[in-house]
Amino acid sequence: MNYSKPCAIQMHNVTLRGMAGILENINTPLDLRGLKEEELTQLARELRRFIIDIVATKEGHLGASLGVVELTIALHYIFNTPKDLLVWDVGHQAYGHKILTGRRDNFETNRQLNGLSGFPKREESEYDTFGVGHSSTSISAALGMAIASNLKGETEKQHIAVIGDASIASGMAFEGLNHGGVTKANLLVILNDNAIGIDPSVGALKEYLTKARVGYKPSRDNIIEALNFKYFGPVDGHDLKGLLKVLEEMKAIKGPKFLHVITKKGKGLKKAEEDQVKYHAPGKFEPNTGELLKYDTDGLPLKYQDVFGLSLVDLAEKNEKIIGITPAMPTGSSLKYMMKTFPERAFDVGIAEQHAVTLSAGMATQGFVVYCAIYSTFLQRAYDQLIHDVALQKLPVIFCLDRAGMVGEDGATHHGVFDIAYARCIPNLMIAAPANEVELRNLLYTAQLGLDAPLIIRYPRGRGVLNEWKLPFEKVKIGKGECIKEGSDLAVLSIGNMAGNVDTAIKQLLSPGKVAHYDMKFVKPIDEELLKGIFKKYSKIITVEDGVKKGGFGSVILEYAASLGYKGDIEILGVPDEFIEQGSVDQLQEICGIHVEGIQEKIKSMI
Amino acid sequence: MNYSKPCAIQMHNVTLRGMAGILENINTPLDLRGLKEEELTQLARELRRFIIDIVATKEGHLGASLGVVELTIALHYIFNTPKDLLVWDVGHQAYGHKILTGRRDNFETNRQLNGLSGFPKREESEYDTFGVGHSSTSISAALGMAIASNLKGETEKQHIAVIGDASIASGMAFEGLNHGGVTKANLLVILNDNAIGIDPSVGALKEYLTKARVGYKPSRDNIIEALNFKYFGPVDGHDLKGLLKVLEEMKAIKGPKFLHVITKKGKGLKKAEEDQVKYHAPGKFEPNTGELLKYDTDGLPLKYQDVFGLSLVDLAEKNEKIIGITPAMPTGSSLKYMMKTFPERAFDVGIAEQHAVTLSAGMATQGFVVYCAIYSTFLQRAYDQLIHDVALQKLPVIFCLDRAGMVGEDGATHHGVFDIAYARCIPNLMIAAPANEVELRNLLYTAQLGLDAPLIIRYPRGRGVLNEWKLPFEKVKIGKGECIKEGSDLAVLSIGNMAGNVDTAIKQLLSPGKVAHYDMKFVKPIDEELLKGIFKKYSKIITVEDGVKKGGFGSVILEYAASLGYKGDIEILGVPDEFIEQGSVDQLQEICGIHVEGIQEKIKSMI
Repeated sequence: MNYSKPCAIQMHNVTLRGMAGILENINTPLDLRGLKEEELTQLARELRRFIIDIVATKEGHLGASLGVVELTIALHYIFNTPKDLLVWDVGHQAYGHKILTGRRDNFETNRQLNGLSGFPKREESEYDTFGVGHSSTSISAALGMAIASNLKGETEKQHIAVIGDASIASGMAFEGLNHGGVTKANLLVILNDNAIGIDPSVGALKEYLTKARVGYKPSRDNIIEALNFKYFGPVDGHDLKGLLKVLEEMKAIKGPKFLHVITKKGKGLKKAEEDQVKYHAPGKFEPNTGELLKYDTDGLPLKYQDVFGLSLVDLAEKNEKIIGITPAMPTGSSLKYMMKTFPERAFDVGIAEQHAVTLSAGMATQGFVVYCAIYSTFLQRAYDQLIHDVALQKLPVIFCLDRAGMVGEDGATHHGVFDIAYARCIPNLMIAAPANEVELRNLLYTAQLGLDAPLIIRYPRGRGVLNEWKLPFEKVKIGKGECIKEGSDLAVLSIGNMAGNVDTAIKQLLSPGKVAHYDMKFVKPIDEELLKGIFKKYSKIITVEDGVKKGGFGSVILEYAASLGYKGDIEILGVPDEFIEQGSVDQLQEICGIHVEGIQEKIKSMI
Repeated sequence: MNYSKPCAIQMHNVTLRGMAGILENINTPLDLRGLKEEELTQLARELRRFIIDIVATKEGHLGASLGVVELTIALHYIFNTPKDLLVWDVGHQAYGHKILTGRRDNFETNRQLNGLSGFPKREESEYDTFGVGHSSTSISAALGMAIASNLKGETEKQHIAVIGDASIASGMAFEGLNHGGVTKANLLVILNDNAIGIDPSVGALKEYLTKARVGYKPSRDNIIEALNFKYFGPVDGHDLKGLLKVLEEMKAIKGPKFLHVITKKGKGLKKAEEDQVKYHAPGKFEPNTGELLKYDTDGLPLKYQDVFGLSLVDLAEKNEKIIGITPAMPTGSSLKYMMKTFPERAFDVGIAEQHAVTLSAGMATQGFVVYCAIYSTFLQRAYDQLIHDVALQKLPVIFCLDRAGMVGEDGATHHGVFDIAYARCIPNLMIAAPANEVELRNLLYTAQLGLDAPLIIRYPRGRGVLNEWKLPFEKVKIGKGECIKEGSDLAVLSIGNMAGNVDTAIKQLLSPGKVAHYDMKFVKPIDEELLKGIFKKYSKIITVEDGVKKGGFGSVILEYAASLGYKGDIEILGVPDEFIEQGSVDQLQEICGIHVEGIQEKIKSMI
């Protein structure tokens, strides 16, 4: 044992040896509030260790929760949760909260099918006052609760939103502050300022906040005070004593108030502190050293996001009109490659999807070819901008929608299952879904040859399906699908990466010759010529998509079929009309019946 | 003639008498820039007069454009438009801009079918650099243009966003400022601060800005400077000389800069200055006095918005858990009635749809019955919040979607035609569309009896169809449609107010007995029992909706029909897959083929 290691690591080994710990006796915050103040420091060490140990083996979001260990303890110690209402923004940082509020013993099921959600969730605990996942909702939610309490005459109750410095820069958070400041609501906004979201924070507000370090306030008349909040801080978020003192003081104050807390993401695990981006959600690692477990990825296909990111660099080298935009996901979307190679043409605008889309539109008016990389689930944040600023003006912005379909362990808040349904009703907007990396690459290539309207390219989370992805670029025919395989009895129409499941499903059938497979490639424009042929030849059709069935790709086929008076049977496979929780992508596809066996069963039931 | 009237009125009569004016010779801003500075004041008078005269007879948005007459002239005088790029936020204030940029002579077609758009629009003029309509997009769009110019090496070019004080409080505007402040973009943001949007502005930022009057800056380190913008002002927006001076000075400054201009909405027409809410878009009026033309509305049905607003007051009187929320539309949504009667339970949160929805969700967690009144088109701004904060948590928020369907003269940016398609793919969310005022009223009543999930109630702009709307409340059966009339050959299924057109269409047929009519009332849950009966009885079905056909109500019927293996013909009437421009609601329904004759033709073609 190396005694030069940080104290937290030593505690770990102590508790592992079975010595009495404090954490094991904390089943609710009431237990916590029974502790003496001087015991809290040890509790913090144990809690940090507990988080590290579980996440090291079960995976999850590490850095954010390590950064708020002291804050989490202080909040539950000072405030009377769950009567006082605590809302965590995003929720990546809420592991400590979960562990201290009755979920210590099943925390190892975190993010697994039927296990704990990776985010606070109302169904899970009365301490989870508001379900989160997407950023910047906490101030609005807590303000709503605070106004409600005032109406009920519960004027002593406190309502606390804990929000990060990346999230507070999102417009929605500003809207919440702007309203909160003119109310008498007992709203406490805590800025958890670690200067990083998933990637380092950006923007003018961040630069402004960065000037504020502990003991130094940038100005007496600062932005927060201008919005009518009583401003406290900045305070050191790892100084438990200081936190307790300021929270105790603030608890007595009515109305909107704001505490600026400086924390370090990954605090207590040296490697996590040093590489905060990597240790946001590091996968498995050695719990003592933080050393990441090495996986042999040789021979595995590249991730779709990297195919996007690397191909965009290739294209941008030859086409100087290409611009890349990401709202706060340079690493997750792999736009980081372009940001490194062409920093002047690649922009991380922070958690600002609305701005990202309209900024893209503005650039497109000046003749640039803008690739706007947004996760499918986050484009929901810019739906109006997609309609009003892009599609209505027919500006040829290219939306690269990563994490389309099931995203797995992030669960219901993050699945990219609505995009086909919400986008296909928008005029002028084209929607493509590549079946593999080469198709993605060729779509990216084709898009910069000159489009006359905007295009969505949706592709899934995780790895692709091919070993050779870097083939020479080929131009894609817009709105054209492809017959993968003819058949005698029934046609399966797939969109996007569902082609893979369909392909496997058909090959494993006893009589694969009966079943045709068409990869439609485009949701819009749909390949009407190809469909006419299919309707002529087949009286049985199955559509397969990894998006919602209501209004999705299958519905496109139904609409066209109805317009032609097609009288065959059409069955739709896709995501049912319910929110799908977390689990592995395979498990979730099975739940939806769009896994290989589900498709086979449907085929068998029809032939 | 009363010589005590303001000068502008006198000018009007002078120009009417045919004396040489300046405005009549301004065909482009180049002509404007040929004027001497001292001629601009007269031009301002003429321009103001011209706007008043046209809007008095042709209707439109009056107050905002009157407020920026001097600013508009100054901008085109100092800047080299269209090379320098000028973006108007929302565009209600851009009439002067249109008139000075080549559209004086056809300005009288403003907002009419095939006429000028009521908003800046790229197709219409090269001076309209960005299409607008919804608020708070201008900073993002102008910043995109500015970054593009820098990339092109056009570093002298200026990019100007003119944004109102209501619009700048929206989160999206903050996102634009937050990004703009860390760029070297030649971005000039002009805050047109008249302390009012359509209704008076609200929020902490507004209170902060209000402290800033001409000659007095609230602080050297103000919010805007904190975001890295060079701050100028406040200046008097009706002092042409002062405006010219400060704009000339600012033109020479590179990078992001901000000019705070104080204006008066309705400036130059006394009545419009005195009642700024009414004169935002006053309808027809007497051009000299501003006196509104009196229409005889006796015997006309009430507007749907008033049925909503007044019924909500009735309900709130008996149910103290009821809360009303509107994002900046107290007058337009008629939430004003509740705001007056129960000010502590009715909230105008400003142009902050995202916040409005999540605030509603927060209140709903505390057991309140929240009616969130948002125009259909503006709910697009809170799409993610609808999914992530409301539906996913199954919080029973009631969304009252006014202006669903065709809105008429506001045109493509404002039609509420996407709501059915974008909402019905969201699990847990119910969608109802009343056919008349009584149905609306009963839905509002039923919603507060206790829902277990969120509900959208969509209803159209304008007047209802009944004379007696205030009948005793009756409970609605959720998810139940109604057979309005049986028939022998064909069934027409309508949703919402389309019931009226269908009813008339059938009655006027030679053989109305052949045609059945079902008012489905709910898009979701759809009345499956009723549909089963319809499928059994009829082999021909027409669906009628005033929303988009792609993924809309008709598609719901197709999906259920396919799931049952229905083999009859289903034809869908609705809004085609294109953006529909401005015109009267009747004209636009005709364009879509959902007017009475369109429905009749479709029926005749099928029987």
